[in-house]
Amino acid sequence: MSNINIEIIRPKADELLLAAKFSTATLHEAAGKIGALPSSIKPLSATMRICGPAVTVHSPPGDNIMLHEAIIAAQPGDVLVVVVSGHYEAGYWGDIMTHAAKQRKIQGLIINGCVRDSKEIIDSGFPVFSRGICIKGTTKHGGGSINHPITIGETFISPGDIVVGDRDGVVVLPGLEIENILKTAKKRESQERLIIQQLTEGKTTMEIYGWKSHLY
Amino acid sequence: MSNINIEIIRPKADELLLAAKFSTATLHEAAGKIGALPSSIKPLSATMRICGPAVTVHSPPGDNIMLHEAIIAAQPGDVLVVVVSGHYEAGYWGDIMTHAAKQRKIQGLIINGCVRDSKEIIDSGFPVFSRGICIKGTTKHGGGSINHPITIGETFISPGDIVVGDRDGVVVLPGLEIENILKTAKKRESQERLIIQQLTEGKTTMEIYGWKSHLY
Amino acid sequence: MSNINIEIIRPKADELLLAAKFSTATLHEAAGKIGALPSSIKPLSATMRICGPAVTVHSPPGDNIMLHEAIIAAQPGDVLVVVVSGHYEAGYWGDIMTHAAKQRKIQGLIINGCVRDSKEIIDSGFPVFSRGICIKGTTKHGGGSINHPITIGETFISPGDIVVGDRDGVVVLPGLEIENILKTAKKRESQERLIIQQLTEGKTTMEIYGWKSHLY
Amino acid sequence: MSNINIEIIRPKADELLLAAKFSTATLHEAAGKIGALPSSIKPLSATMRICGPAVTVHSPPGDNIMLHEAIIAAQPGDVLVVVVSGHYEAGYWGDIMTHAAKQRKIQGLIINGCVRDSKEIIDSGFPVFSRGICIKGTTKHGGGSINHPITIGETFISPGDIVVGDRDGVVVLPGLEIENILKTAKKRESQERLIIQQLTEGKTTMEIYGWKSHLY
Amino acid sequence: MSNINIEIIRPKADELLLAAKFSTATLHEAAGKIGALPSSIKPLSATMRICGPAVTVHSPPGDNIMLHEAIIAAQPGDVLVVVVSGHYEAGYWGDIMTHAAKQRKIQGLIINGCVRDSKEIIDSGFPVFSRGICIKGTTKHGGGSINHPITIGETFISPGDIVVGDRDGVVVLPGLEIENILKTAKKRESQERLIIQQLTEGKTTMEIYGWKSHLY
Amino acid sequence: MSNINIEIIRPKADELLLAAKFSTATLHEAAGKIGALPSSIKPLSATMRICGPAVTVHSPPGDNIMLHEAIIAAQPGDVLVVVVSGHYEAGYWGDIMTHAAKQRKIQGLIINGCVRDSKEIIDSGFPVFSRGICIKGTTKHGGGSINHPITIGETFISPGDIVVGDRDGVVVLPGLEIENILKTAKKRESQERLIIQQLTEGKTTMEIYGWKSHLY
Repeated sequence: MSNINIEIIRPKADELLLAAKFSTATLHEAAGKIGALPSSIKPLSATMRICGPAVTVHSPPGDNIMLHEAIIAAQPGDVLVVVVSGHYEAGYWGDIMTHAAKQRKIQGLIINGCVRDSKEIIDSGFPVFSRGICIKGTTKHGGGSINHPITIGETFISPGDIVVGDRDGVVVLPGLEIENILKTAKKRESQERLIIQQLTEGKTTMEIYGWKSHLY
Repeated sequence: MSNINIEIIRPKADELLLAAKFSTATLHEAAGKIGALPSSIKPLSATMRICGPAVTVHSPPGDNIMLHEAIIAAQPGDVLVVVVSGHYEAGYWGDIMTHAAKQRKIQGLIINGCVRDSKEIIDSGFPVFSRGICIKGTTKHGGGSINHPITIGETFISPGDIVVGDRDGVVVLPGLEIENILKTAKKRESQERLIIQQLTEGKTTMEIYGWKSHLY
Repeated sequence: MSNINIEIIRPKADELLLAAKFSTATLHEAAGKIGALPSSIKPLSATMRICGPAVTVHSPPGDNIMLHEAIIAAQPGDVLVVVVSGHYEAGYWGDIMTHAAKQRKIQGLIINGCVRDSKEIIDSGFPVFSRGICIKGTTKHGGGSINHPITIGETFISPGDIVVGDRDGVVVLPGLEIENILKTAKKRESQERLIIQQLTEGKTTMEIYGWKSHLY
Repeated sequence: MSNINIEIIRPKADELLLAAKFSTATLHEAAGKIGALPSSIKPLSATMRICGPAVTVHSPPGDNIMLHEAIIAAQPGDVLVVVVSGHYEAGYWGDIMTHAAKQRKIQGLIINGCVRDSKEIIDSGFPVFSRGICIKGTTKHGGGSINHPITIGETFISPGDIVVGDRDGVVVLPGLEIENILKTAKKRESQERLIIQQLTEGKTTMEIYGWKSHLY
Repeated sequence: MSNINIEIIRPKADELLLAAKFSTATLHEAAGKIGALPSSIKPLSATMRICGPAVTVHSPPGDNIMLHEAIIAAQPGDVLVVVVSGHYEAGYWGDIMTHAAKQRKIQGLIINGCVRDSKEIIDSGFPVFSRGICIKGTTKHGGGSINHPITIGETFISPGDIVVGDRDGVVVLPGLEIENILKTAKKRESQERLIIQQLTEGKTTMEIYGWKSHLY
Repeated sequence: MSNINIEIIRPKADELLLAAKFSTATLHEAAGKIGALPSSIKPLSATMRICGPAVTVHSPPGDNIMLHEAIIAAQPGDVLVVVVSGHYEAGYWGDIMTHAAKQRKIQGLIINGCVRDSKEIIDSGFPVFSRGICIKGTTKHGGGSINHPITIGETFISPGDIVVGDRDGVVVLPGLEIENILKTAKKRESQERLIIQQLTEGKTTMEIYGWKSHLY
């Protein structure tokens, strides 16, 4: 079916392993200040972390059939990244789907909408990043698409892009530029360690970064 | 006084005990996808749970005298369900009222507005579901009503309706239909256990529910 | 420079020590129901507490140079209180700045905007009260002011005002009136202990406060 | 079908004629400060006015089949009052439906959601009160109900209730109390004319209403 | 009474006459980019204009007694500038009050809240700038203050400050700096005429302002 | 410069002329229910219409240098389509820029943010579609891009895409699919004329569209 693409280009395993070591803020900066999803999308539990290739899902408002399809379409390690046509107030994902996704070794869920059965999801250890928690059920009419580009906030997401989530939220990294982003992130982290060292020695951030202060 | 009704019809004790065993999402589905309060109403602490008959309270904006009256009007086990005329940004309930309510064995509070003294409330173990926490004080002019029907979001709440709250939020169940709802909830839970069993055996949710997939 | 004031009048140390013992709700009431910041400004972690003199910072939207300057301008024990021209969706403060501020014994941060590196901030024990967490980076163009009066919500904040934060949120107390506020807070707390005693003895809040009830 | 009721009790023609002469604010006050819909529901054009019995419609999010059914279910003079499950961002009503409704002498539409083809609607003279204008199309899956009670904001609306709309917005009046409401509205209007007369003679509103002023 | 101040320092008549000639945007820029109220406060009708000294009013949520008092406290030519404790959803001002205010030659109303009887207000020619229109009535408990400083958005307003409103919204100018602001506004307007002349001659804004373009 | 692209592929003149004849709702449907910008983006004046190729502009928050550059980069007939990093509350465009744009025969502006000098813009006849009107000024630090893809709401916009605006809002049509979209729109309009004819003859929309009604 043309609205469902199965074949997507995934990042290399070693790139994913490396990306998982950086914070979302570091990756966002290293990518040139791009890819941060709206701050209203947060982990259900503060300790959840995620890093994997995006299987993008577009769902009609208040319907979740396409999310069930996506559980089948995804590969082990994939992250479902879902938009729901702007109708946030429904529980698009719950206990059963969490079981189904874990069974297929899907890594986690990022959704620009709400989920439910939050206690069961958290207890299961399956990382979910969402707008919130909503009890309301969904219809099963169908419609939508899998692995077509989607947008969340001002971020454009292609299937196979790397999505990384931590306590701060979610950042999306273009698959094609991942090598450079990771190099820059690595460099940035070394610099940060150096800066913290200089702070300990009594320097100010204005001095360290070389900005002109009005205070001395 | 005509604006305060004392006599309300409460659900049977065994129905309440049974309802308390189900999650809000299960009860919402069992009731025919009704009764879910807006997702902005959440427990102060993730582990709070509540299940009891609603004593409905309507309060003028920024005033909380009628909540003090409601503590007297309620019976042990009751849950105060409060609307505040859309003026959310005030702390309508705090430490003292929590003590007063616990003293009278009131079970908890659901309010379409804010509360304060959140630490003291949480420490006391008294479950509160609210829009948030707000420091601002209230006036004591009076006005409002007790045990008249109220609406929160798109849900109509009659005095004596069963309100159930958990980590996901709050669901309101019509008193007259509770017997059927509980039967359906029970059946639904058995089915869910069966579905999880089938998932473990490798079936997909599309197969289990019998939906036509585009993927095979 | 005229846009940066270094000299401000700070409250006395013993007043700060005393203020730190009261809850924000008690201080808000004692001050005559003033000073509560919007309820959307909350601690990053529920156990964070803060009490100190305000170093006020006004920053252009999406820029954080003036926050770096403020780390230099502040004295040990000060609290940075920051407005960002209404552009909330950026991470104005992060890991490095937390290190820099702790190094200079700054007590904490209150910001009408977002921060990032939330895990590192929480782990460091540095109290931050903010609108939320946002990954997006800031520019370094400069501009803004330090220790000029600012407003957050409907509250006017002068440099040196006492800011107190706890789980409920933040309250700002005018420096000139602090002595009276603390006296009133003390009295209020004694009264509350008395009221709780009376509740235990079976009195209702309507009786204790002497309000006319419609219920007896 | 049980989800569609055809028979509803409508107010008398002379009551409707009388109600149409009062402003929404006067009717809201005369009814005891009830029935005002959220202020975000406004006429498409400032001169639109409406007054008729409510045919209540509940629609699933993003679907408008039940609105097409309602055009058939309604009688000449009726007003469709529609809720769309909180998914406002779709154009549930447009040019074609306006033609269809006018053909059947339906009086107008009140919808807690958006419409489209605003120019054509306004040109047609068919009064529409909505949350706004949205280009997005709807699905045709069906579902929902006609002439069951609905709620908008904090207002409960029964089929056959009188809905009145003008530049200020919409007020809903319970069918059973309309006689008293109209009497009170009439009295209120006479009083207002008297008050304006007294204002012209130099009296203040504080004097006229007999409130104690702090100014003399 | 201490919560109502009658004596305020008003700007000179010729300054008001001059200020009335400039647009709000020009005055905002001339004042150093300050004083613009939130963009949600707009004129009821696009042609309304206002320019006069502020009589500041603080009202409790949902109550409008203090606005009635303010009609007495104000002088001919004054503009009532009202905050309502953040409870926007009520009609704090209507037909009767408009008559009363016109009778006393009050110039207009700016309110960080809603009004009602919009048709009558617009027909009367009395300029009103508000958050919107709301049918809901208010209580008459009293409380609040007149001619104490208030804040709207991030703008601090002292009694006697000059408030100017046009189609774009409202700007507040500090009374003490008005002379300089008007000089700068005059200069800015001459420059704008010159710039428009240069545009007509084919120059670009980048050239005219002397900014370095990346395009030539 | 790499952040500014001058060369873009524009649609053919006859396609633009044809597209201009359809309403935004018709084009949205013809395009397969895509491309509708958020309903909060509306014309400054109800009669404004626009249809042309998009010159996309990305601006940092609160800065408008890149809009000045875009006036130079655009060709006669182009429409500037601007995103401002989510900081809506500033007047990014005003009187001077409108003159400059008209001088260069730019057709109009669509901005996911606010503008100012609304009266002058409307009087000039230059169509502007925006989130609203805001007096606040902008900085001139620079940064951003021209003619790189941008997103508004859930719509992805490439340079050269056709943007069409009317009273209902704005729709964006992918340049590559315009031929098919226009064909479908034409067909849809003929059908609508036919449907209105059938309505006049007494048929219902349920009959005309062939949907199964529950009412006969």
